[in-house]
Amino acid sequence: MSLTKRSVAELIGTFWLVLGGCGSAVLAAGIPDLGLGYLGVSFAFGLTVVTMAYAIGHISGCHLNPAVSIGLVAGGRFKASELPHYIIAQVLGAILAALLIRTIASGAEGFSGGLASNGFGIHSPHGYSMMAALVTEIAMTAMFLFIIMGATDKRAPAGLAPLAIGFTLTLIHMISIPVTNTSVNPARSTGPALLEGGIALSQLWLFWLAPIIGAVIGALLYNFVSKED
Amino acid sequence: MSLTKRSVAELIGTFWLVLGGCGSAVLAAGIPDLGLGYLGVSFAFGLTVVTMAYAIGHISGCHLNPAVSIGLVAGGRFKASELPHYIIAQVLGAILAALLIRTIASGAEGFSGGLASNGFGIHSPHGYSMMAALVTEIAMTAMFLFIIMGATDKRAPAGLAPLAIGFTLTLIHMISIPVTNTSVNPARSTGPALLEGGIALSQLWLFWLAPIIGAVIGALLYNFVSKED
Amino acid sequence: MSLTKRSVAELIGTFWLVLGGCGSAVLAAGIPDLGLGYLGVSFAFGLTVVTMAYAIGHISGCHLNPAVSIGLVAGGRFKASELPHYIIAQVLGAILAALLIRTIASGAEGFSGGLASNGFGIHSPHGYSMMAALVTEIAMTAMFLFIIMGATDKRAPAGLAPLAIGFTLTLIHMISIPVTNTSVNPARSTGPALLEGGIALSQLWLFWLAPIIGAVIGALLYNFVSKED
Amino acid sequence: MSLTKRSVAELIGTFWLVLGGCGSAVLAAGIPDLGLGYLGVSFAFGLTVVTMAYAIGHISGCHLNPAVSIGLVAGGRFKASELPHYIIAQVLGAILAALLIRTIASGAEGFSGGLASNGFGIHSPHGYSMMAALVTEIAMTAMFLFIIMGATDKRAPAGLAPLAIGFTLTLIHMISIPVTNTSVNPARSTGPALLEGGIALSQLWLFWLAPIIGAVIGALLYNFVSKED
Repeated sequence: MSLTKRSVAELIGTFWLVLGGCGSAVLAAGIPDLGLGYLGVSFAFGLTVVTMAYAIGHISGCHLNPAVSIGLVAGGRFKASELPHYIIAQVLGAILAALLIRTIASGAEGFSGGLASNGFGIHSPHGYSMMAALVTEIAMTAMFLFIIMGATDKRAPAGLAPLAIGFTLTLIHMISIPVTNTSVNPARSTGPALLEGGIALSQLWLFWLAPIIGAVIGALLYNFVSKED
Repeated sequence: MSLTKRSVAELIGTFWLVLGGCGSAVLAAGIPDLGLGYLGVSFAFGLTVVTMAYAIGHISGCHLNPAVSIGLVAGGRFKASELPHYIIAQVLGAILAALLIRTIASGAEGFSGGLASNGFGIHSPHGYSMMAALVTEIAMTAMFLFIIMGATDKRAPAGLAPLAIGFTLTLIHMISIPVTNTSVNPARSTGPALLEGGIALSQLWLFWLAPIIGAVIGALLYNFVSKED
Repeated sequence: MSLTKRSVAELIGTFWLVLGGCGSAVLAAGIPDLGLGYLGVSFAFGLTVVTMAYAIGHISGCHLNPAVSIGLVAGGRFKASELPHYIIAQVLGAILAALLIRTIASGAEGFSGGLASNGFGIHSPHGYSMMAALVTEIAMTAMFLFIIMGATDKRAPAGLAPLAIGFTLTLIHMISIPVTNTSVNPARSTGPALLEGGIALSQLWLFWLAPIIGAVIGALLYNFVSKED
Repeated sequence: MSLTKRSVAELIGTFWLVLGGCGSAVLAAGIPDLGLGYLGVSFAFGLTVVTMAYAIGHISGCHLNPAVSIGLVAGGRFKASELPHYIIAQVLGAILAALLIRTIASGAEGFSGGLASNGFGIHSPHGYSMMAALVTEIAMTAMFLFIIMGATDKRAPAGLAPLAIGFTLTLIHMISIPVTNTSVNPARSTGPALLEGGIALSQLWLFWLAPIIGAVIGALLYNFVSKED
């Protein structure tokens, strides 16, 4: 496939990730008694990856995440020269999804304007410090890339990597929504932050920095463990 | 298989979709403390497709949804000449399921008569406007068909499309139950609306129009992205 | 494998089904704020089948349910001559699980003695009539066997029937726990009823009759739909 | 792979099991209205195994649990001579995860110091006796090993053992969190207990003894049932 078509696939896939994850958080998480809660939002994020990986894995690899693309470069699985196309497409998809969520959410009374952005300190869902946020995002993204590298290893069972990778994203959210609202994905953080502005935008740097550091660590760690001596 | 037998399979499958999805919503979603909530209903709808796709995918393709059948025609995966049989069977299955749900629900005191119909404005679960409903149903069905086309592509892992497609329906419900009670399926909307009558029936047009528009968009989009240049 | 060893596998498997399903219901479903609710119990029952089918499917076929064994005889997939061994083993496994649940539950204060038995009328979780219970159990077991027959058809994807069948049991519980506490399995009903006695025991007949009728209907229906003309 | 690299994989994998399972319990389980509850924690533990088994199953076998390694020795699937390396690595990984959870949890106000340790009597989540705890942990670990042995049998469907085994761990938690907070894994118990000290540490013996007894029983039972006569 051409790089352009693969990039369009990444745009659509990241659109789906943010629409499903942030969309369910904004529209359905906090409804009294019936709402999804953190468990539902965790499954929503994970299922965006499970489903889209089966749909476009054979087209673009289904990264949907600049940290994943960069980690895969570090791990020798993706070409650095294609990073700009992929990352721009991923960020565009996330922005379009945030716009759509805002459009839908504005169709009922009482919309606060929040789009499930990420944050720390006073913008953390439960008041976690910047240092806790940094540690959490680095550790979570490192484990994410470690598992992505492993589940897509040629020695792993074929066809099941989408489940493994998507459910890893579910699990990451189960642990870390209270800390940072969970990023591990700079594109997912950028879409909502650009539209919300304010503190979400001013804290956005951490959600580029930490996931990228974590992703590189995780990919290198997998290669260290898995290479035949 | 003959068209008749495949249509009977579609009838049974759509019966299951409405029985599982609307049935769990009517009977078990809102019970205080123990009820399924929107998360449970979302899984119920998705699991109807996961389970039935393994049971009849090899017989009829397991569309269970007029918008899916029409989208697959637009995408070149299904014959237009077989649409009438499939759509009639799907709608019949949905009506039979709505009848069964009403029969069971009437077996305990306090049944309101509601059968989990779809709606907007004052009939939206949380008061979303007609425009929000239109946008939501179009976008959700477009993503649904995009993923159906991708997960059943010959290049995708064999045997796992039922999981991908069913979990997509789960995810769609996680996002959009608050908006329209989630259709993306004209047959699923028609069964409950015919029995409820009133506002559910008068708003039924939107849940034929929007899913069909979305389905055609999603199928064409997948072909655009996935075709070799 | 010998019939004896296959029967032992059925005993262990049905022990697991009742331990996981009824055990989670008794020990963890109703705990305020943190409890599993009906959604968790539904997943518990389904996951007993998913997990055990991967463990012993290649040994005994993993029926774990007299109605399933009888339905498979009706559908031409199992020998009638082996029914007595299988059914006795299944019932024994269920009784042993009920005994273990009672032993564990008695280890904390406040155990009511209830073991998640099935019932209708005043013994239905939400007061559903005997007729609603009959209709529900027949319909649910019919769909269960229809999907079991389909997912284990040679034309269906290999290796994924355990997921399809287990998630069907999850879905059946999502719909029908409020009605009868969900049986679709005479062995699962018998274990708790024998230990509880009283009304659970006096209503046990329905949870043998209805699942068996439903199972035969579902198996025959699948053969009708799926046979090449 | 060398024993050292396989042991490192076990360390990372057990780190993930405790980080995901105990981490979600500490950080996200009990948050009012939105928290994961016991259902979410059960899925978290199970998904750590599902995801890591796809990532490192081909490297180390992904035991992540001294009782599993010992049970597999009893069942003839693992070498006794490699037990010390595996067990030390598993315990180290669990300790590192407990340290990380404490670091993150300390980043917000109101952290109690609890790290989801296991216990019985006054340290049981709902006051279950030592005898109930012993019976529960033995029975649960026995079923765990029975299913691990079965799902990894050459006659079972290839590639799906991670789902079967992970979901078994989910199910075990659904049943037994109220009793002991669920161990079935001495490493998982040791990490939090070492950091918490006090009663968690003084009760740690049971969570080595009972899982190991159960694991040996389960592995032998599977071999008895599954061997051709």
